[in-house]
Amino acid sequence: MTNSTTMAHAPREVLSLKNPSFCAYMVCSCILVIKMIAVALLTAYKRKVHKVYLSPEDVKTNTGQIDTHDDVERVRRAHLNDLENIPLFWTTAFVFLFAKPPVWLACLMFFTFVIARIGHTIVYAVYVVRQPARAVCFLTGLVITLYMALHAMIVGFAHI
Amino acid sequence: MTNSTTMAHAPREVLSLKNPSFCAYMVCSCILVIKMIAVALLTAYKRKVHKVYLSPEDVKTNTGQIDTHDDVERVRRAHLNDLENIPLFWTTAFVFLFAKPPVWLACLMFFTFVIARIGHTIVYAVYVVRQPARAVCFLTGLVITLYMALHAMIVGFAHI
Amino acid sequence: MTNSTTMAHAPREVLSLKNPSFCAYMVCSCILVIKMIAVALLTAYKRKVHKVYLSPEDVKTNTGQIDTHDDVERVRRAHLNDLENIPLFWTTAFVFLFAKPPVWLACLMFFTFVIARIGHTIVYAVYVVRQPARAVCFLTGLVITLYMALHAMIVGFAHI
Repeated sequence: MTNSTTMAHAPREVLSLKNPSFCAYMVCSCILVIKMIAVALLTAYKRKVHKVYLSPEDVKTNTGQIDTHDDVERVRRAHLNDLENIPLFWTTAFVFLFAKPPVWLACLMFFTFVIARIGHTIVYAVYVVRQPARAVCFLTGLVITLYMALHAMIVGFAHI
Repeated sequence: MTNSTTMAHAPREVLSLKNPSFCAYMVCSCILVIKMIAVALLTAYKRKVHKVYLSPEDVKTNTGQIDTHDDVERVRRAHLNDLENIPLFWTTAFVFLFAKPPVWLACLMFFTFVIARIGHTIVYAVYVVRQPARAVCFLTGLVITLYMALHAMIVGFAHI
Repeated sequence: MTNSTTMAHAPREVLSLKNPSFCAYMVCSCILVIKMIAVALLTAYKRKVHKVYLSPEDVKTNTGQIDTHDDVERVRRAHLNDLENIPLFWTTAFVFLFAKPPVWLACLMFFTFVIARIGHTIVYAVYVVRQPARAVCFLTGLVITLYMALHAMIVGFAHI
């Protein structure tokens, strides 16, 4: 009969700025997008510095050669790892919202994921730290995604 | 005047647990997320087994060397093929829901896609089967995505 | 007191075929999906023409060998660049819709992005044009994504 009980049972709209979990999803998704753009620009910058390119037309306009460099490849690996993990988060977190998790849980998961992925990029591509620093960041993100996917799958399955 | 006719014409909410097509989307998206996580972990496992790594800091903590191995590269190619196809499905299937397909069609497309992609991973990375096994799985997924994209594009275009 | 003012202030549903911005999102997302499928098929076609493959089972059914070819690698790089940019657009444009931009702004951003990415693929993989043609296409897409991400992040943050 309390106000909070009534609100919890009220059919709240999931995809609305009135839902704090969805606002957290918006913020976290955008931070990850900006982070990935930063990694893309870092690759371009490293190519300029080391003068190594992949396509002949890039060599013509810049002085340099078609080659690879450890430093560039490291940033590219970090970028590829983002591609293997962050789109999974975007989709999983989105469907997870429909499982109507408590706001604190959604925020905790989303922001921890963001911190783990930013940490991953830093220890992989910016300032190399010895393992298991990168493995911890990677697995934190993976476990969060896996939990949300299992949770949302069960809720979805129960309502088909 | 029948009940089913009335319901079909009623403005049903697309993104709701009351819409079985959306529940199927939730379930299928999550299965694909879990499948991709499994492929990521399989890569890590194969690296451990064959003792080949890409970064010096991984060689330090594990005994091994910086090298590539056919077995590892095969799993990575399967993973890359997933990246080239599954995010397309997530987006296409999502906008396809707004074209309000019949529930049986949406379910058929989503679950066939999931089966095709799981089959693709198995015949590519787990137990290699001779072609055209992989090509059939790949093309099944592609045709489903293409159909949904064309359908949703036309519906979207008609309402702009 | 005019009708247009009333409508602008009315709580319009974001994810609905009645919202022209969302229809533009549907159309643009689907065009990009179809474009990426075309690049995937172009890779397969180039492999056939140059008879170079990555897996032994492909060599068996087709005459050819395990090798790489500049022409194939060029298409693959264009494809990878798509993977690094287009899923970011799908997510960013989606959350950007909730920031309720004017319809003309949303349409302008979405369709410019589509044109920039199609241009990128053409000058990279189909008919190679000297730089900065590719750089201009790439940066146009990047700036649009970045603007939408910043805009949506601020709106999301203000409503948490």
